[in-house]
Amino acid sequence: MSRVINFNAGPAGLPLPALERARDEFIEFGKSGMSIMEHSHRGKDYEAVHNEAIALLKELLAIPDTHEVLFMQGGAHLQFCTIPMNFLPPGKSADYVITGNWANVAYSEAKKLAALGIGKVNVAATTEVDKKFTRIPKQSELKLDPNATYVHTTSNNTIFGTQFQTFPDTGKVPHICDMSSDFLSRKLDISKFAMIYAGAQKNIGPSGVVVCIMSKALIASGRKDLPKTLTYSVVAENNSLFNTPPTFAIYMVRNVLDWMKKSGGIAQIQKWNEEKGALLYGTLDRMADYYKAPVEKESRSLMNIVFRLPNEGLEEKFVADAKKANMVGIKGHRSVGGIRISAYNAVSVADIKHLCGFMEKFAAENKA
Amino acid sequence: MSRVINFNAGPAGLPLPALERARDEFIEFGKSGMSIMEHSHRGKDYEAVHNEAIALLKELLAIPDTHEVLFMQGGAHLQFCTIPMNFLPPGKSADYVITGNWANVAYSEAKKLAALGIGKVNVAATTEVDKKFTRIPKQSELKLDPNATYVHTTSNNTIFGTQFQTFPDTGKVPHICDMSSDFLSRKLDISKFAMIYAGAQKNIGPSGVVVCIMSKALIASGRKDLPKTLTYSVVAENNSLFNTPPTFAIYMVRNVLDWMKKSGGIAQIQKWNEEKGALLYGTLDRMADYYKAPVEKESRSLMNIVFRLPNEGLEEKFVADAKKANMVGIKGHRSVGGIRISAYNAVSVADIKHLCGFMEKFAAENKA
Repeated sequence: MSRVINFNAGPAGLPLPALERARDEFIEFGKSGMSIMEHSHRGKDYEAVHNEAIALLKELLAIPDTHEVLFMQGGAHLQFCTIPMNFLPPGKSADYVITGNWANVAYSEAKKLAALGIGKVNVAATTEVDKKFTRIPKQSELKLDPNATYVHTTSNNTIFGTQFQTFPDTGKVPHICDMSSDFLSRKLDISKFAMIYAGAQKNIGPSGVVVCIMSKALIASGRKDLPKTLTYSVVAENNSLFNTPPTFAIYMVRNVLDWMKKSGGIAQIQKWNEEKGALLYGTLDRMADYYKAPVEKESRSLMNIVFRLPNEGLEEKFVADAKKANMVGIKGHRSVGGIRISAYNAVSVADIKHLCGFMEKFAAENKA
Repeated sequence: MSRVINFNAGPAGLPLPALERARDEFIEFGKSGMSIMEHSHRGKDYEAVHNEAIALLKELLAIPDTHEVLFMQGGAHLQFCTIPMNFLPPGKSADYVITGNWANVAYSEAKKLAALGIGKVNVAATTEVDKKFTRIPKQSELKLDPNATYVHTTSNNTIFGTQFQTFPDTGKVPHICDMSSDFLSRKLDISKFAMIYAGAQKNIGPSGVVVCIMSKALIASGRKDLPKTLTYSVVAENNSLFNTPPTFAIYMVRNVLDWMKKSGGIAQIQKWNEEKGALLYGTLDRMADYYKAPVEKESRSLMNIVFRLPNEGLEEKFVADAKKANMVGIKGHRSVGGIRISAYNAVSVADIKHLCGFMEKFAAENKA
């Protein structure tokens, strides 16, 4: 067995101990005589795993009693419409801060719901210039409506490599944040958010499960006449067991969270992520004649680091040579090109050092 | 490692070879240096698995070119509302055949959508008597509206243990069938259905993925102004890769389908299921003084076999003694009590023989 250094943008690399644990008990979970995926979601074996995943999340993120943890399906994409269906009544409006592709999609999906009698969506700010996003807006740029039912932001932009360093102040308006690509990468003050949601496939586990952290007040304020699967209060009241949840995906989330806890918790994870960022951005800045990092310094993402080489031919060679040096998943998103290093939690400081060494050598050997 | 005989109703037992294959390549899929769940859904390794799962389904069920295979999320429960959202325009109506709990839920979820401006739902028939369902309606009992946009049926009822032996004739009205609990258990004439859908966690794989087989005509007839995740045409046009699918769950589906093919295909699976049913119902009928099977003979399910013992005390002892004899998951649904044997595809003829032997012995040793 050999493992590569996996810089995939998502689904992404997972911590090896979390995978090994799953492999070792894949056929028989505990002494139960069956795989965890063969257990009933109403049985005590699965329920213990489910509740442990929730408890670990609460502990790692210091989630206050005012908030609940929900597991849902359909990816962040289904949240894009479930959120306005629940929290945007006819005649009301919500504010969207557009900082990249996924923020744009969240906005346009919400906008479509007018066809189903849902309220209006406004753009509170956009940093788009020539179809690109290279920065996060300042608080002073946001045109926030104090009567909006919520403000929607996207904490990290996987395609353009930007990230909110500090979150906007939304005043008394509930702040709903899509954290799919940087959830669990740093400490958070959960009390500042009415809702945080994240598809699992970056920092948390396999694709197929979405983690939502929601204030009880927001849940209670939601619509109650929708289909059950699309009603947050139904999911919350039933501890995310109202219908069959994606049990194996949640089990993997439990394994990843347990690895995080044993690694020293969010503080340690954040320290590693800052160290990784300092190493990689340090290399880019030191070799700025060769590697071009387009994102403004104050908006740089620690999760997705994007850069260009002197020309596309060299970018292709960079990808090919990196593969020979055991590194994969570094091609930029097809819509923007270039190189993208996704350095989620499972990517180690040593992996980034290996990459930086490779970058120095590549630049020296491949003049433009 | 030891394995029990797993009669869970769902999530349920999976074929051991499909699990062992997953375990053996859990850390490194092929020679790719990573787990299948760490692969990008846009990469060639995952795409090959995804397309193999679709191809195996098409082959096993002889799916004609008029139909497409889709993978979706949210369980059958999300289909309950997605179907009317797509195919039930305002001012139109759809017919529902109510044969059990899940048929009832499908109907009541569709009914709720009036709040979002969706058309009306009618009950075409119900076999409910005193909150119980012990039979499947005859064709002559169905009040089908020739102008309905579709007819919805539920092929097998996990709680009450009934199953359509032959499907109703819906004339020119598209027939949409929830086959969550007997999909892939027997041969089907796919051309008779506009849509078949099934949550994976009975016969197909782990929970977290829904398989839909849909006629291209039905897909084309659907609404186009809904959010993308809820629009069948968007999912179909993108080969179920429009957003990140539950990749590991689909990989497990591939493993299970490959096991089915190697076992002799649907014909062999059906033969085993018929043999299992003959053994178990044969035991129940032979010992009808002791075991009471409430379902009418022509409506008996081969997937979920329900029966009662002389009293609840004996039922409790039956469950406890069965556990000592290595059999689990046999308690009836909490809403109806009694015993339920779920004999999905992964349950072998030998498992059922073991159960029947146990039943003979139990009845002899535990007089009422």
